[in-house]
Amino acid sequence: MVRSGNLFADLPARSDAELTTILAEGPGVVIERIVSTGQASPAGFWYDQDWTEWVALLTGSAAVLFEGEGKPRVLTPGGHLTIPPLARHRVEWTDADEPTVWLAVHMGKRGS
Amino acid sequence: MVRSGNLFADLPARSDAELTTILAEGPGVVIERIVSTGQASPAGFWYDQDWTEWVALLTGSAAVLFEGEGKPRVLTPGGHLTIPPLARHRVEWTDADEPTVWLAVHMGKRGS
Repeated sequence: MVRSGNLFADLPARSDAELTTILAEGPGVVIERIVSTGQASPAGFWYDQDWTEWVALLTGSAAVLFEGEGKPRVLTPGGHLTIPPLARHRVEWTDADEPTVWLAVHMGKRGS
Repeated sequence: MVRSGNLFADLPARSDAELTTILAEGPGVVIERIVSTGQASPAGFWYDQDWTEWVALLTGSAAVLFEGEGKPRVLTPGGHLTIPPLARHRVEWTDADEPTVWLAVHMGKRGS
């Protein structure tokens, strides 16, 4: 069965929390759409993952700060990052005016 | 080391063949950008893969025909498909007027 959908369907104009949808899964792989509407990582919070994540921003904008870098990397549509295991990072801000659609591919995540 | 890039950078206006770039790789996973400029699968050719492929179309348009379906599925920006192993399919056409940018995630591909 071929599953299909659209990455830009059912975008919330505004929501309290980020909206994460699993689009596809395989052995050790999870593909997600994440929609942010102004959210940022909580103060002092760092993502610290033991797997590789590839992330692309498709609409909106966002800034991702990696520990040890002086300033965040600002992403605009099409921008993508390959985040190696244990690269501590946080989302400093996401677009306040329009939904930010991310694609995230988690690779080698345990338990998936 | 965090690798970065933009999915819409360096798009060929026109090229003889599709342009495939590996964006990231993990255990059993390959993430590619494919740029089509009017190409289609050769007459009589079917993709017949023993792994799962998730594909999304980001710009342009295309039609993907699955064996046994009466008509192709037309993809516009944001459209995505999860193609299970052994689902024979072909690209009937891609946009003649602007580059078609695809994202493809191959999952569980042997040798990768």
